[in-house]
Amino acid sequence: MSNTGGAVVTSQDVARYVGVSQPTVSRALRDDPKVSEATKTRIRDAARLLGYVPSATGRALAVGRSHRIGLLLTDVENAFYPHLIAPLYRELRATGYEMVLLPESEEADPVAERIIANGLDGVVLTTSTTDSALPIRLRDRRLPFVYFNRTVPGVAADSVVVDATAGYAAAARRLAELGHRRVGAVLGPQNTSTGLHREAVLRAALSSAGLVLDEAACRRGPFDVASGHAGMSEILDLPERPSAVVCGNDVVAVGVLNAARERGVRVPEEISVLGFDDLPMAGWPLLDLATVAFDLPGMARAAVRLIAERAEGRAEDTFTQQVFESSFLERGSIGPADRG
Amino acid sequence: MSNTGGAVVTSQDVARYVGVSQPTVSRALRDDPKVSEATKTRIRDAARLLGYVPSATGRALAVGRSHRIGLLLTDVENAFYPHLIAPLYRELRATGYEMVLLPESEEADPVAERIIANGLDGVVLTTSTTDSALPIRLRDRRLPFVYFNRTVPGVAADSVVVDATAGYAAAARRLAELGHRRVGAVLGPQNTSTGLHREAVLRAALSSAGLVLDEAACRRGPFDVASGHAGMSEILDLPERPSAVVCGNDVVAVGVLNAARERGVRVPEEISVLGFDDLPMAGWPLLDLATVAFDLPGMARAAVRLIAERAEGRAEDTFTQQVFESSFLERGSIGPADRG
Repeated sequence: MSNTGGAVVTSQDVARYVGVSQPTVSRALRDDPKVSEATKTRIRDAARLLGYVPSATGRALAVGRSHRIGLLLTDVENAFYPHLIAPLYRELRATGYEMVLLPESEEADPVAERIIANGLDGVVLTTSTTDSALPIRLRDRRLPFVYFNRTVPGVAADSVVVDATAGYAAAARRLAELGHRRVGAVLGPQNTSTGLHREAVLRAALSSAGLVLDEAACRRGPFDVASGHAGMSEILDLPERPSAVVCGNDVVAVGVLNAARERGVRVPEEISVLGFDDLPMAGWPLLDLATVAFDLPGMARAAVRLIAERAEGRAEDTFTQQVFESSFLERGSIGPADRG
Repeated sequence: MSNTGGAVVTSQDVARYVGVSQPTVSRALRDDPKVSEATKTRIRDAARLLGYVPSATGRALAVGRSHRIGLLLTDVENAFYPHLIAPLYRELRATGYEMVLLPESEEADPVAERIIANGLDGVVLTTSTTDSALPIRLRDRRLPFVYFNRTVPGVAADSVVVDATAGYAAAARRLAELGHRRVGAVLGPQNTSTGLHREAVLRAALSSAGLVLDEAACRRGPFDVASGHAGMSEILDLPERPSAVVCGNDVVAVGVLNAARERGVRVPEEISVLGFDDLPMAGWPLLDLATVAFDLPGMARAAVRLIAERAEGRAEDTFTQQVFESSFLERGSIGPADRG
């Protein structure tokens, strides 16, 4: 009870209180077998009594791990990321890690140096482009990382991804049933694995359902609202409009719906719209957006398990790719074609 | 160039390469005047050449600071927070700090212990309720913190807040001009300084403009979409509906607009809606939400300056409250009353 003046309690204070050396306190609190159980109990009780909290910084130096994982993403204001940050954060906490947010676009070398300088145990990469040099830099520096929702060809690593096949197949069948024939799209960027995968799968799914992805009514751009708005504005100017527009994700779909609203084009009466991700806002009555859903919390659990195993040296020499299924979710933004 | 086998380069490696002691390397890299400029240049060049990155963990122990600031918030999936995380993050980075996200609701003691165990230099509190014990725990442990957008009575600290007066005064005048008389509201929770402040200011502003805040058409709840939806659903069931509904913030307004859409009640033809915050989505044509705006990036700059000064021991003994002005932003969700 010698915690005078409100100063932070140190392991020295605990040692003095129990009458042992400071190294004995450290050993006891990290459960070293060299310290007897009786002494450990006395030291733990005293630590609790005095309000001693071991410093994570000191512990990191002692055991070489910080129990901090970085989450690297660009464009933190994009409406997709909170829904990714939240489950990743919860899983990291449950696994004993703090999350350090690294929400920016930077050159690969400074980012890699910051990750090392911060003593992070590993990184979750969520927005890598296919031409990113960061994975190779992290590999050079032996820093564990996992790809989340995106992969970078050429640098193998553990990854957690969504397979759009089932979701797009069901969506394409439904569009065919509703009488659609020519389908347009505002797709994701071609320098992302997600953008490339979704476009290839969409093309195949439409074709299997007897539909055509009309190249003249396809636009590509970042996964953001502005890209959806710009793409849809051009599509609505075409002499022959498609009867449905497939969007790279729900955030792009918001831009597409905004452009339709601006022009007074009614959804789904005049044009149907499909998203991807099933963000909470897709279910808002204001949007009522048909979309492709998948198990985002399950993906977060898988990613945290993979990065923790890698950071703790428990992972295999080979890498794991965990693939999540998708499903089509019908809502009011899709309706019959050719009502007129 | 003796970085063999890809291992992480240490200050020992730099010392060996230059032919000086390891402490000299450390001193040179923290710009200690005891080391000559010529030696510093040689050491810096060697560090760059060998790819040496000083460990932040080691540096924290050496100088007693981690250069990490925590951002404590509940409900990270709430659409408001990304727009707060992004500017705070940019300002922290520009000031030389990493941001550690602590996005959860927890008892005060475990949170305070985690903040200490992580060696954070300070915390930005963004979602404290007026009954939170955390500020007093942080003060007990001498941990610097700043209130952002919220304050807790009884525990003085640096704070950055918005004054709703100018924004609500202009909004109330405009509603009066448009012929509104009875105004309803879905307000924030009464255990937050933000909720209490906005309600008091709104009441006074409406009264000054000759309008009445109709208590029968007032609901209160969390700053989230569900609260707006539930509140508006009840208001629309009233025998006498108000002609306008003021919302605790833009996120609440989304729920209000959703409820109106569900019932087929047209905005603004049948009821006008006002938000607060001017989030980017308020400007989407899908929402077209009139709102109260303020300088969120400026607030982030002020908060980071305050917490950095406090963490670095450069702050005054007295606390600073920095107050930001608000302004009314008219959009399509507000129109004339009594069109019928």
